[in-house]
Amino acid sequence: MVLLSNNLMKKTFDAFQRALPHIQELHAYVPGEQPQGAGWVKLNTNENPYPASPKVAQAVAAELSNLRKYPEPTSARLRAAIGQRYGLTQQNVIIGNGSDNILDLITRCFVSEPGAGHTVPSYSLYPVVAGMSGQALADVAFDRSMRLDVEALAATQAKVFYLTNPNAPTGVAFPLPQIEAALQAIDGLLVVDEAYVDFGGESAVALLQDYENLIVVRTFSKSYSLAGMRVGFALAAAPIIEILDRVRDAYNLDRIAQAAALAAFEDVETFERQRQQVMATRETTRAALDALGWFSYPSATNFLFTEPKNAQGESGPEVAASLFAHLKAQRVLIRYFPAHPLTCAFIRVSIGTDAEMDVFLTAAQSWLNHA
Amino acid sequence: MVLLSNNLMKKTFDAFQRALPHIQELHAYVPGEQPQGAGWVKLNTNENPYPASPKVAQAVAAELSNLRKYPEPTSARLRAAIGQRYGLTQQNVIIGNGSDNILDLITRCFVSEPGAGHTVPSYSLYPVVAGMSGQALADVAFDRSMRLDVEALAATQAKVFYLTNPNAPTGVAFPLPQIEAALQAIDGLLVVDEAYVDFGGESAVALLQDYENLIVVRTFSKSYSLAGMRVGFALAAAPIIEILDRVRDAYNLDRIAQAAALAAFEDVETFERQRQQVMATRETTRAALDALGWFSYPSATNFLFTEPKNAQGESGPEVAASLFAHLKAQRVLIRYFPAHPLTCAFIRVSIGTDAEMDVFLTAAQSWLNHA
Repeated sequence: MVLLSNNLMKKTFDAFQRALPHIQELHAYVPGEQPQGAGWVKLNTNENPYPASPKVAQAVAAELSNLRKYPEPTSARLRAAIGQRYGLTQQNVIIGNGSDNILDLITRCFVSEPGAGHTVPSYSLYPVVAGMSGQALADVAFDRSMRLDVEALAATQAKVFYLTNPNAPTGVAFPLPQIEAALQAIDGLLVVDEAYVDFGGESAVALLQDYENLIVVRTFSKSYSLAGMRVGFALAAAPIIEILDRVRDAYNLDRIAQAAALAAFEDVETFERQRQQVMATRETTRAALDALGWFSYPSATNFLFTEPKNAQGESGPEVAASLFAHLKAQRVLIRYFPAHPLTCAFIRVSIGTDAEMDVFLTAAQSWLNHA
Repeated sequence: MVLLSNNLMKKTFDAFQRALPHIQELHAYVPGEQPQGAGWVKLNTNENPYPASPKVAQAVAAELSNLRKYPEPTSARLRAAIGQRYGLTQQNVIIGNGSDNILDLITRCFVSEPGAGHTVPSYSLYPVVAGMSGQALADVAFDRSMRLDVEALAATQAKVFYLTNPNAPTGVAFPLPQIEAALQAIDGLLVVDEAYVDFGGESAVALLQDYENLIVVRTFSKSYSLAGMRVGFALAAAPIIEILDRVRDAYNLDRIAQAAALAAFEDVETFERQRQQVMATRETTRAALDALGWFSYPSATNFLFTEPKNAQGESGPEVAASLFAHLKAQRVLIRYFPAHPLTCAFIRVSIGTDAEMDVFLTAAQSWLNHA
């Protein structure tokens, strides 16, 4: 549409001024870069380097003749399979169009004054989902130890507290007794976002039996290799799920997404083999970074958060930025978070195949040789 | 999870009481019945009786090796193709996970006191999306003529007015001059929901050039045979799209949905042939209902809204309910809306294949013979 100048319009509408105040202030989530073209080693968005289960292609093919018909609205088969796997029932499970969808549902249903809470640093979507509902978001700051401050968490009085465990972008896992201490200490809901738990974290699912104020959120994007399909789920007491379902789009998952996720979930052998491989590659890579004298947090995820040192043994924001730029110039894409004092001297590297990590390490070595 | 009784829980949480007040009051959308098992003639949810374009299967297959990677976040290729088709640009288009997703985005961004508005009867999702955001919804009542009352529409002072054109469940199309009159009369946004427009309605897209307070919403669920894929789109001035994008889930469409919708959109030949066939079958069916002496509204959609008469020439709620039950017993599923005086004496019949409509008409005749 060639937008005419306002005075030629028969009716004008100032969309920005007409948007609700909290929407005017909102900053949309910035996804990790998706480079176009071939030749990139893409270690920037924590995707699984291995393809989805071969069962997925079969399941998708079987749905192709049904696309003219609406999907089953609740993703019932997927709920049942997930409930059973975790010793729960279908009534304890909700499926989202990605776990981001579920984080939004939780926020819309349960967050009011004084707002939500999260740790800093953690997943950068939490400020966006809180902001989309016009709610404040209290920060609980880490120090360099990355230990969880349960008292500070409770002191926020957040209606919903989002906790990524294992955390991102650090990779650090919080032990289960700390999660339980948080559940005891708070009045609101604790959302434990376990996007990365399959790579070595301890799941809070076992705590659902004793704590009704817990929601565990999972995704098919990482350990099931289905980032391209947008499927996440949450586990909680049945009354919480019933509330969340009220705000869920009636048909939030398409037929193919439901079928693909179910096929991937049921192929336990592929899942198990791939997550073990990712963890093995992570430890090999970590040892190589250790050998360079670079500090890395212990990772229970499919990425490493590492503080690079240059050839002079210096670390800091300039050093991390220099490494990021050098790698990008060599078409190795990693993630750099310059905005926070606890992240600006680090880089985050997703775990790819062994061959990809070799390319990364070779490029890092070439930076050391030339920086 | 076997939920223990509250006094054995280490921490209880009353989800209903903790939900926001407007969520406590919310009634979730009730989708049309999706019968399990074979043998049904399913004429209840306005699905296209013909399969999606064969190009869809090819496009889906081409994405299968990429599922481990996140999708392109904005559905850029689809936006570009749609923008070009309608003489607009990519900046005038947003893609939703179904058009329901877009209706929710519009509501979240632009509805505040005194709320939104809609006509009654129309699409039963509007009360749900308004309620999900805690907003009131003003009713503009039709009378039996189903003519649009533009003055009453403007008098609601709605921040956003949802208008289904052609309307559902009546099938009646509103002429473009009435849409333009509404755009002139209102202060807020007019959302023209054109889910059915490809079956004979007049699109408001041409009015986008003159009216910045217009949003046209479309879906791939009906005329593109992709109800199972959840893809909708909206066309509006670029500043409106920019606001809606702030609240959109960063990855709201998966890879396969993007690819499938693009393939269906570009297969103009299949689209054109199928919509012509649906319209032809509609008119044949309508003639058969006319021959029975049943009143039907003129339909510009893929369904008919018809007031059945029994063998005694009587119409009314009991007659419509009796026909609905008789058809269901014969595994012919249609839709019946008993809750409103303007709908309770009618049935809504989606247009299937010619063979399916013959089954429907035969079953209706058997009801006439036995009721």
